[in-house]
Amino acid sequence: MNEDKFNRSMAKQKTHVDASIAAASNEQSLIVLLTGDGKGKSTSGFGMVMRALGHGQRVAVVQFIKGTQSSGEEVLLKQHFPEIPFFQMATGFTWDNQNHAADKAAAQHTWSIACKLLGDPTLDVLLLDELTYMLSFKFLDEQEVLQALRERSPKLSVIVTGRGGGTGLRELADTVSDVKNLKHAFESGIKARPGIDF
Amino acid sequence: MNEDKFNRSMAKQKTHVDASIAAASNEQSLIVLLTGDGKGKSTSGFGMVMRALGHGQRVAVVQFIKGTQSSGEEVLLKQHFPEIPFFQMATGFTWDNQNHAADKAAAQHTWSIACKLLGDPTLDVLLLDELTYMLSFKFLDEQEVLQALRERSPKLSVIVTGRGGGTGLRELADTVSDVKNLKHAFESGIKARPGIDF
Repeated sequence: MNEDKFNRSMAKQKTHVDASIAAASNEQSLIVLLTGDGKGKSTSGFGMVMRALGHGQRVAVVQFIKGTQSSGEEVLLKQHFPEIPFFQMATGFTWDNQNHAADKAAAQHTWSIACKLLGDPTLDVLLLDELTYMLSFKFLDEQEVLQALRERSPKLSVIVTGRGGGTGLRELADTVSDVKNLKHAFESGIKARPGIDF
Repeated sequence: MNEDKFNRSMAKQKTHVDASIAAASNEQSLIVLLTGDGKGKSTSGFGMVMRALGHGQRVAVVQFIKGTQSSGEEVLLKQHFPEIPFFQMATGFTWDNQNHAADKAAAQHTWSIACKLLGDPTLDVLLLDELTYMLSFKFLDEQEVLQALRERSPKLSVIVTGRGGGTGLRELADTVSDVKNLKHAFESGIKARPGIDF
């Protein structure tokens, strides 16, 4: 395809997408699933948290896997928006089979907090960061999770991030993006960088 | 693959990735490219802006395409972080061939601002939101853009978002994610939602 053809094709596509967006008139809350092996799932979740805060909405964050380093998004939210409910799974999740029971208990405790937030009629946006791994590892019951998402407070939009998560979650979600890793800096020996990677 | 096998495979993969990340020791700034047709490119860029702000870093934002609605991220940054350089392309970009000359001039003016920020030695993170379209439409010279990115201030990490962008940008970037649309709410007639879509 030559450049002109490409440009016309892109413009046409954009016009088509804009028309579909304009025609969409159904006001309802959403479930957004950001999955795949590439960089940008959690950061996208936090970008939506930022959007919602900008609109004066009420948001909450539950992180099912916490890294060892304190993340920038955590520091920012706690410093500038201390009123936001922000929970992290208590034990360092280890991917270590020997701690399976402890990990499962921690996941279930964290899920019970998420469930309360799912039923909170004052909330607009809830980020369930890295929830999918809890499903992949069977720390949480898939049907229970899907039911709680379905029966959430009607105005609450939920963002779920993490690889995998199963077809049930994918079917339930209104918007699903598969973030594919084409290249990652660490593969070239570049160290994880504050502000970008955590 | 059964569940156990899947779990072991995921844990192994995670261990491998963790080891690669731990072994990566090269401290250098990055170019991150978030491309593809799915939801989550700009939001991921703003999530990294949030991360960087949490670490007390200096950030700047240049948006090459501005929607008609005021976005949550714009309101949030202007209210809570008024010191952040935040620029938007002045004309509403229309994808309309009749305004080609005006769009091109606007793109080039916006790029001149981006160039100054690329050379600012005090900045840590610069988000060039939707820059790729300026390249696809030949509003900017690809080689000039690549050179400015290469010759940026050494400590500055740059995040570029948008569909396409060409192989030159993809090769230059250290981290590239292709955000694939598996499903989008507007395809089901659900209206764009504040806090999620803008």
